[in-house]
Amino acid sequence: MRIHDWPTGPYPARVRIALAEKNLQSQVEFVTVDLRKGEHKKPEFLVKNYSGTLPVLELDDGTFIAECTAITEYLDALDGTPVLTGRTPREKGVIHMMSKRAELELLDAISVYFHHATPGLGPDVEIYQNAEWGLRQRDKAIRGMHYFDGVLRRQRFVAGDDFSMADITVIGGLIFAQIVKLPVPVECDALGAWHERMQDRPSVQNWAAMSESAEVPG
Amino acid sequence: MRIHDWPTGPYPARVRIALAEKNLQSQVEFVTVDLRKGEHKKPEFLVKNYSGTLPVLELDDGTFIAECTAITEYLDALDGTPVLTGRTPREKGVIHMMSKRAELELLDAISVYFHHATPGLGPDVEIYQNAEWGLRQRDKAIRGMHYFDGVLRRQRFVAGDDFSMADITVIGGLIFAQIVKLPVPVECDALGAWHERMQDRPSVQNWAAMSESAEVPG
Ligand SMILES: N[C@@H](CCC(=O)N[C@@H](CS)C(=O)NCC(=O)O)C(=O)O
Ligand SMILES: N[C@@H](CCC(=O)N[C@@H](CS)C(=O)NCC(=O)O)C(=O)O
Repeated sequence: MRIHDWPTGPYPARVRIALAEKNLQSQVEFVTVDLRKGEHKKPEFLVKNYSGTLPVLELDDGTFIAECTAITEYLDALDGTPVLTGRTPREKGVIHMMSKRAELELLDAISVYFHHATPGLGPDVEIYQNAEWGLRQRDKAIRGMHYFDGVLRRQRFVAGDDFSMADITVIGGLIFAQIVKLPVPVECDALGAWHERMQDRPSVQNWAAMSESAEVPG
Repeated sequence: MRIHDWPTGPYPARVRIALAEKNLQSQVEFVTVDLRKGEHKKPEFLVKNYSGTLPVLELDDGTFIAECTAITEYLDALDGTPVLTGRTPREKGVIHMMSKRAELELLDAISVYFHHATPGLGPDVEIYQNAEWGLRQRDKAIRGMHYFDGVLRRQRFVAGDDFSMADITVIGGLIFAQIVKLPVPVECDALGAWHERMQDRPSVQNWAAMSESAEVPG
């Protein structure tokens, strides 16, 4: 398998953390697509992923799988523990809901803020910006942090009693929050405590170490 | 099980079609949440789904599952045929990717257009609109129709050889396109032909008949 990504990106982090949780890193070769040069919007890349985003998983049969959730589903179905996307119908439903909610209310919202209300990837890549929309999304993400804080006040992990894809999506959101300097509000102490616990996981430590040493800063 | 939805809504359609495909309709009781009155943004509803959208599945144990993809995962995992979210890792990955792409590039884009650049659900519900963003999303959706047309020129269904959740998401997109009067461009004849085949499926016919007779127009 090959993964086309950008080493320090928050979405690529989701897949790199999932890979490490499943202990599959050694089966993957990474190919860097240079976001700062806008390589992800060039025709050669758009045939791999019409939406022009990273990461993309390339299977040995030539199939391209874009979208973090879809890649995580693929990797999880290869087997091995921990199970990231649930075992029972209820677990699968709740994990998919919470992971999608973490995109809508946190990670994707911060991404829109970054691309629309900050310099983002620079003027050559950000050819259209809507700052008002971007700022709205920033505010939505801060509300999202309060929402997840409430969730984590009631339960150990984002989707219940076990670590799952939904935790990884919130971790991705907080990685992006750090890049855009949007700190977790101090009153969100349950979210903060959960985040510290997450940073003890080898998969997350591994990502942090790799990301610090990457030549291409996020 | 109970489903909180709005009978003619394009997202609710995704779950209603999935239910009919799995032959589970008789196990479900429907509860109408009045979108035009903004009931989906009221505190009583937001505890069911923080994001304030429909549909929401309520399990007999009191668990609420929001998000069409998550609900479809739940229903599909209950078993029965057809399998909507894939059997093999590759199928699961590709179906999730194509369904997500149908959201990003078609259904969600049209939804943003509807809520931001048309009167949407009316002035009492649409308290913030960003028309410029909405119009951009409309254009994105039209490009998305061309993209899916290209996909359906090469294969029978949106995610390959079999009907899946990804087809249902594109159907949802075209239901919303009809509501906002955004016709499929005539040159997209592969998308048009696929859409006609989809309308022959009992699940889709059923939805169309039910929707026409609904008291609350979409
Ligand atoms: N929905 C996509 C989003 C991926 C995404 O936005 N990735 C970032 C890299 S961290 C990207 O490609 N951004 C470039 C852009 O949107 O222009 C997913 O879940 O994989
Ligand atoms: N991401 C959600 C979106 C659902 C959605 O937008 N549903 C529409 C009903 S057709 C809605 O609730 N719209 C009201 C609003 O966004 O204010 C899903 O996939 O279920």
